[in-house]
Parts: sequence; structure tokens; C-alpha cells
Amino acid sequence: MSNNLLKGKRGIIFGALNKESIAWKVAEQCHEQGAEFVLTNAPIAMRMGEINELAEKTGSKIIPADATSMEDLENLFKGAVEELGGPLDFVLHSIGMSVNVRKGKHYTELNYDWLEKGWDVSAVSFHKVMQTAWNLDAMNEWGSILALTYMAAQRTFPDYNDMADNKAYLESIARSFGYHWGVKKKVRVNTISQSPTMTTAGSGVKGFDGFIAYAEKMSPLGNATADECASYCVMMFSDLTKKVTMQNLFHDGGFSNVGVSDMVMDEFMK
Amino acid sequence: MSNNLLKGKRGIIFGALNKESIAWKVAEQCHEQGAEFVLTNAPIAMRMGEINELAEKTGSKIIPADATSMEDLENLFKGAVEELGGPLDFVLHSIGMSVNVRKGKHYTELNYDWLEKGWDVSAVSFHKVMQTAWNLDAMNEWGSILALTYMAAQRTFPDYNDMADNKAYLESIARSFGYHWGVKKKVRVNTISQSPTMTTAGSGVKGFDGFIAYAEKMSPLGNATADECASYCVMMFSDLTKKVTMQNLFHDGGFSNVGVSDMVMDEFMK
Amino acid sequence: MSNNLLKGKRGIIFGALNKESIAWKVAEQCHEQGAEFVLTNAPIAMRMGEINELAEKTGSKIIPADATSMEDLENLFKGAVEELGGPLDFVLHSIGMSVNVRKGKHYTELNYDWLEKGWDVSAVSFHKVMQTAWNLDAMNEWGSILALTYMAAQRTFPDYNDMADNKAYLESIARSFGYHWGVKKKVRVNTISQSPTMTTAGSGVKGFDGFIAYAEKMSPLGNATADECASYCVMMFSDLTKKVTMQNLFHDGGFSNVGVSDMVMDEFMK
Amino acid sequence: MSNNLLKGKRGIIFGALNKESIAWKVAEQCHEQGAEFVLTNAPIAMRMGEINELAEKTGSKIIPADATSMEDLENLFKGAVEELGGPLDFVLHSIGMSVNVRKGKHYTELNYDWLEKGWDVSAVSFHKVMQTAWNLDAMNEWGSILALTYMAAQRTFPDYNDMADNKAYLESIARSFGYHWGVKKKVRVNTISQSPTMTTAGSGVKGFDGFIAYAEKMSPLGNATADECASYCVMMFSDLTKKVTMQNLFHDGGFSNVGVSDMVMDEFMK
Repeated sequence: MSNNLLKGKRGIIFGALNKESIAWKVAEQCHEQGAEFVLTNAPIAMRMGEINELAEKTGSKIIPADATSMEDLENLFKGAVEELGGPLDFVLHSIGMSVNVRKGKHYTELNYDWLEKGWDVSAVSFHKVMQTAWNLDAMNEWGSILALTYMAAQRTFPDYNDMADNKAYLESIARSFGYHWGVKKKVRVNTISQSPTMTTAGSGVKGFDGFIAYAEKMSPLGNATADECASYCVMMFSDLTKKVTMQNLFHDGGFSNVGVSDMVMDEFMK
Repeated sequence: MSNNLLKGKRGIIFGALNKESIAWKVAEQCHEQGAEFVLTNAPIAMRMGEINELAEKTGSKIIPADATSMEDLENLFKGAVEELGGPLDFVLHSIGMSVNVRKGKHYTELNYDWLEKGWDVSAVSFHKVMQTAWNLDAMNEWGSILALTYMAAQRTFPDYNDMADNKAYLESIARSFGYHWGVKKKVRVNTISQSPTMTTAGSGVKGFDGFIAYAEKMSPLGNATADECASYCVMMFSDLTKKVTMQNLFHDGGFSNVGVSDMVMDEFMK
Repeated sequence: MSNNLLKGKRGIIFGALNKESIAWKVAEQCHEQGAEFVLTNAPIAMRMGEINELAEKTGSKIIPADATSMEDLENLFKGAVEELGGPLDFVLHSIGMSVNVRKGKHYTELNYDWLEKGWDVSAVSFHKVMQTAWNLDAMNEWGSILALTYMAAQRTFPDYNDMADNKAYLESIARSFGYHWGVKKKVRVNTISQSPTMTTAGSGVKGFDGFIAYAEKMSPLGNATADECASYCVMMFSDLTKKVTMQNLFHDGGFSNVGVSDMVMDEFMK
Repeated sequence: MSNNLLKGKRGIIFGALNKESIAWKVAEQCHEQGAEFVLTNAPIAMRMGEINELAEKTGSKIIPADATSMEDLENLFKGAVEELGGPLDFVLHSIGMSVNVRKGKHYTELNYDWLEKGWDVSAVSFHKVMQTAWNLDAMNEWGSILALTYMAAQRTFPDYNDMADNKAYLESIARSFGYHWGVKKKVRVNTISQSPTMTTAGSGVKGFDGFIAYAEKMSPLGNATADECASYCVMMFSDLTKKVTMQNLFHDGGFSNVGVSDMVMDEFMK
């Protein structure tokens, strides 16, 4: 159902890989709410994906970009502004990958080349996206920039490995760059810390099924779904949240502020 | 402008004293967004206020209630459910008062009877409101309960006095009761931590003008206004934020995550 | 083993009920480290306790005081300064009690008279202690005031009930009063957030055994014991921590920053 | 004055450049408290430094190591264990450097090669240090590993630039690796978040003098000095803090929990 919350707004959405992707749901809901946007993903990721279907459904153009390449990002932002007919009102960064996780390297025996690669893709890319938009003056006043993150940035989930540190860096970038965006352009920058979600990315983490079940029982409202996350992103892109910036917003059914739930204690005591 | 975000939703709004009140703005915006609600305030506060004008404008009934009286609250919730034709979807708690602040008592020489009074009015009332709704089963599933708070709950602003401790208690109630509401009824409970705002309540705090100017220069987006706060409340009442619970949400132009701003340092170095 | 960390220091220790009490261990270790102090507890609590044995062992005087009575507190502080021969260097507040917990009242059906009693005893008493010391100018410069707290102030543990809100209020008092003590007298005020500990007070909480086992498996270093907590208190009273103030310090084997441990997940997946 | 707090303990201290360095003071105090340790620094830094004087004074050997080189670190840890006669009880990581800060690059126009360099030196080095110790099994049970950090990891200080993000990553490493150290070896890992301090490193930050004056007036106890920080490190290395892990400990005279002080408001209102 549309509330026209994003009517007339232009944006870029990173990271829609397939129907399970949170970014995919964000694109669908932004479209319903009246936004126009460009879809983007790494060239290599798009070969695997079904992004063309999403582009068609939402009337969007696709501009491939490696989010670690300043050249690709410049091309993307220039192309998006041209395609959409003016500067942007919103950006979604939904990008994350750890080679150490993929290759099953334990946190105590990390490969540092892989560490650097995952940090660049998962965290620095967010700075690169914003620095590109800054240089090109590609954001409208009162625009909204969002990145998706996970609570491992605050507390240790052992299997999350070096992605925890990447997310901490990402959230710090949101604050650091958010300060400058706010002062210069009235643009807000926030991160949404989402429940564990069974996306293609999430399913790469060891023991993820069990962990999702645990989080479900720990969260008074249950885990937040990808669709619900997309609604929260819409809210953060809309004009109703103009003064929220430099925040990390937990969207997790309450998990983050539960010490232990009765349901988890019951399971534990069995 | 309406987005029909609250169409068909029923609620109770505490604390609309006059046009400067955040609760007043919330009532106006909830009305625009299609909600129906009952307005309430302490009998003594209403004599001072212009709440009849707001009731007329929004087509709302007024049911006076002292938020520290379980009898008044029961009467209010029963009346609201009857008046609106069913259980409620949202509640706004915007109530705060410290006798020690009003009487100019320093934090190091508090009067403990006054402390107890302010704690009961500013913080325990939130528990009483929720316990009343719980007992009467007066909330719909996926309903949303909100209270307004201030960052003094986390960091010391000396003139805020014992209200800091009251707000810390209030935010703790939101978490504690939010757990039970979530598990039992899928109802969410959150607090919004708003910029200093020049309301009748705010203006009672010593040196408040200067502090507002300071906060304005510290916040990359400037202070959030009462109207902007009302928009954020609308969002938190809407179905776009269903899985956010037990959170304290800063709505402050970025103040909470700024160590020091260039503008404040410039002023400081003069 | 003594390191003479508290040689020549004078203090007051609240809350030593019996050998299981954290305050009891603090008294023992403070004595070993060279401190002199007065022991105090509520007259009613002392009848149950074995505090005389502790007094003898540590060469301390006992001055009974109801920590909610300003008259008793004045008598206590005057007596302690006189007995010890000068103003104080440290104070330990280890006091907590909820009538609602004791009587098995659920958080959603609190008795508000009992709520007020528990709040006064568990939280306001800390303000009263400091206001008394402030009025009597009973603290030395660079003194250290500590209260014991629990992580329920930040996250919900359902059985902890209204003590969670009391602890949030207590921690806020530490910040609020800590500001004024620092500015006026260079005195620091902090709270230590301790692992669940099997004291007489702790054992009153429903299902406490199971919860201690859970916390043990969640904490990389295991739960902190009462003795270890006492060592941390000694450190916070010593001159090695002079510039730490207004902090809440987790002493919990890492629990507070673990999302989930492998040991808990293993148990959960059984 | 010695309390023999570290008698018989062995360690490695990174980052003593000259007498202004915090690590220098830590070495002096560890020596006074009975510890034996190896001093280390980057070969390039040592040419500038006066570290030989410190080595002589504390009876320590110097083993140069580039903290980003796994080969150097392996050589260092092997050498230290051999030199000191057994596995280690403590490690201090006091290393930080941003090329972007040094070269005056604004946060919105970062050079990404320099970003990577600063991240590796300031943050990843902490992981490398711990991974080396882990591989060599070079820590004793109940050992203590510390890194120095700054509050820019939580809140934006614009001139701190990309060091803010490095410190956020560093603190996340402390939690992530701290989990594994705790489970496997009962070793604790923490960070101390120190007041701005006029060291050689600190003085590289633009407008640092003014900022130190600001922090002094914001902190109820004033800024913490390098010497006081060293005392806090001693405490964290001692057996009196065995169950504190995965924490970020503010050592800042209260700055972190002050919203605004009267002294800063007075200055602001001038």
C-alpha cells in the first residue's frame, strides 16, 4: 500500500542481489511509495542475480558499479543524476562480504589480505560512496543516506568473525561523515541494525539457522523480516525523519535490549 | 500533508497543554494522518490550557485524568475505548514535572518529598498508564506506545536536576514493560529523546535559552522542532516501524553523537 | 595479600549482611589494604546478620542506619568522621530491595506503594547518602564513592522486575551527583555492574540458580565472584583510578558485550 | 610509590616514543610495581625517540618491531618470552597514526591509500599482535591485554578525522578477540579511552590546544594526565581486575558522561 511517502524523490539502491535481499525489498517499497531510483551492484554480483526483473518491475535503470572503485562510483552517481533528472534524495548501502568468513578462517587466524578486502568492500565502500556524492554535489538538501549493519558491531557473536569489526567501522563512518553532511548540506546519515535475516549474504555465516532461531526466541516481537526492514528504510528516507542523523537504529524486535528472555531460559534449562 | 499513515488507528494523547506542546503537534499530525484519538491532561493543567481548541480542530473528545491516579487512568482508558469504538493502537506519554526544578532547589540539596512527587508524575505515570492498559486489555496487537524523554538520562546537564534521574527511570520502564508487551501482545514501547524544545515545560528550566542556542550549534542539523518531533511520533505509530521496540530513539539533529562541533569550538575559542 | 593500596584511607561500607555479601568481602579486602572504616546497615537487617564478627575481624565500629532516613545518615556520617578521625576517602553503597520481587508481584501488576518503598531503599538512598556527606562536608578531596548495580539497568531480565528501573535510577544518580562532586571536591562517583552473585539478596530473585548458570556460560571469563568484585572496589577506592568518574563499570567476565557465546548456542541447539 | 601490584609479571609495552608518551609512563610505573617487560616500537619511530634512556632506567630490553609486520611481531614475542623467561602477563598497545591527519586531508576528501595505511597501523596492528601471541601461545592464563583509544570512536570530533573510524575498529577488535582469549586462556582484553593528552601523537591533530582546554572545562575532574592513565593501566594489568574484559573504559575526568558543564556554558554565553 502506498502512502506516497517518497513521491518525487530520487535515489540509488546498492545491493539488490535477488528476492531475498533486503535491498530488493527496499526497491519494491520505494517504488510503491513514489520514488524513482537507479539500481546498482557489483558487475560480478549481477551475473548471479535476477536484478533485471526488479529493474523492470520498478521502472529503474541498472548501472553496475564496484563500490570500492572511485571511478565506477563517479560513473554511477553522474549516470543516476542524469537518468533521474537531478540530484538525489536518498542512498541505500547494503553491501557486505568477508573473505575470511567465506573461506572458513577463524577470527584467531585471519588472513590479512582477505581482511583488507572485506573491510574495503563492507565498510570503506560506504565512505567512497559518500565522498563521491560529496565531490559531485549529488545530494539534495535534507537527503537521507542509509547503510545496513548488524549488532555484532557492539557485541560479539563469534561466528560473525571479522564482519563485526567491519560493521563497527561502517557505523563510525556514518557518524563521522554524517557530521559533515549535516553541517554542509542538511543531509542525514544513519545505519539500521537489522535482525539476522536469511538472505544470500546471511546464509554464508556458519550455523546461521540455529542463530536465527535463537534470535527469534530472544526478541519479544520476533526477528524483523527483510520486508519490515524495507519499511523502516522508507521511513528513514521520508520527510518525517528529517532531524535524525548519526544514529545507529536497532530494528530487531527488541533483541538488543533483552538480557535474556523467558523463552531462551526455558530452552536453556531443558 | 496527509499520507494516511494512521488511517483507522485509535489512540490516547497525554500532555497537550498549549500550541507549544509537542503533544499538541502530535495530535494535529495524527489527525491529518487519519487517526482518531482522545486527548487527556491533568485536570489542573487543563484549566491553564487551550485544549478545547485542539479537541475541536481534531474532532477529539477530552477525558481529564491525573496520570498518577490508577482510578483516573482506568476511567480514561475505558472511556477512550468506548468513545473510539475499540481497543487502541497508540499512546503518547508526554508528561514531566519536577518540583525541585520549579522551586529552584539545587541537585545537592533536594527535597525528597518533591523528588517523590516528580518521579511519580514524570516516570511512574508511564508504568501506571501501561499497567492500566494491560489490565483492561485495551491495546490492539501491533500497537505502539511512546514516551518523550531527554538525553539527560545518559549525560549530565546540571540544570536538568532530578529530571535526569526521572528520565532514566522512564526509559527503563519502556524497556522493562516493552518486553512484556512484546511477548504478550506484539505491542511495541519506545522513547523518543528530543532536542531541547521551547515548550512551557522546557522554559521552566534555568538558563534554557542559552542552552537551546548551544544545542543548536552542536547539532549538525540544528535542533529538532516540536513539529518535527510530531512527525517522528507519527512514524513510530505507523505500521512502518512494527519491529522497533524497547529503544530510546534520539531525535536531535545529531547532538547525541557529536563530541564537539566546529561552531561550538569557534565560540569557545573567542 | 596486601598492597597497602588503601593505607591511611577512611570510609563507610553499607550493606554487609553476612559472609555471602559483596560488602562483607569489600570490608575484608579494604582492611587488608590498610583502610579504616565504619560498617553500617539497617537496624532491621543487622538483627539477621553476623556483622559483629566482621567488625571484630576488621577492627571496625558499627553504626546502624536506615539509609532512607536523613537523620540516621547524618548521625552515621558524623559518627564515622569522629570515630575515624577525619573526613572520608571512600563510601560503598551496596543496598537493594524490592518488595514487589519479594512478594512475587509480576512487573505488569505492580503494587505502587511497594514500588515507592523499593525505589527509596535501592536508589534514592544513594542520593541521600551523598547529600548527607555533601552537607556535612564529610569527604576528602579525591575521595571515591561507589554503588553496586546490575546490567538489568540497560537490558531486560524479566525476573529482575522493578529492580531494573531502580538500578537505572541509581546509575543516573551516580552521573548527576558525580558531576557536582567532581566540580566541587574532586570526588569521583561510579557504579560497578556486577555479575549475578549468589548473595542473600540475589537468592531472592526467581529462578536465580538457572540464571547464574546461563550467565556463567555466556561470559568468556565466567561470572565474577563476590571476592573479585571486592578487589575491583578496592581498585576504585585507590589512588590509581583518580580520574574515573560518572562511569558504570561492568565487572562481569565479559557478559555485557557478548551477543551469544558458543557454549550457550550449544546448549540451545540440544 | 610501589604497591608491588605487578610483582613477577612479564609484559610487552608498545609505543614509548619519548617522555610525553603514555606508554613511557606506563613503563615507568610497571617497573615501579615490580614488572619486567620488553619495550618495542617501530624501527623508524625509535630513531626519533629517547627509548634507550627508558630501557636503562627500567632495566628493559628493546626489541624493535613494525607492528604491521607479522614477521617482526613473531620475532618480538619469541624474543620477549625468551628474554623474560616465560609467557607474558600483560601487553600494552599504544599505537596510532593517520596519514590523512598528518597531511591535512579533510575527512570528505580522504586519500584511500593513506586510509588503508592508518587503519593497518592504528587498528589492525592490535589484531596482529594478538594473533601472534595466540599462535605462539605466549600469554599466561589471567593475562591482560590493553589498547589505548579515544572517545572519537563513539562521537564525532571533526578534526580527529579517520582516526575516529580506526579507533572504532580497534575497540571492536578488543571485543572480538577478547571473547576468544577469554574462552581459551582466561586472558582479558580491554581498551582505555583516555582524555586528550598532549603527546607527540596528540599534538599532530589540528587545533589540539584549544580542544584540550575545552575538554578540561567539560570534565568535572579535569583531563586525565598521561601519568594517571599509566596508573589505570597498572590497575588493569594487576590481579585485582581479573574479570573485566571486552570493555572500553573511559578515563577522562567524567567528560564522556557530561552533556554540558557549567564552565563550558559560561564560556559559551560570553
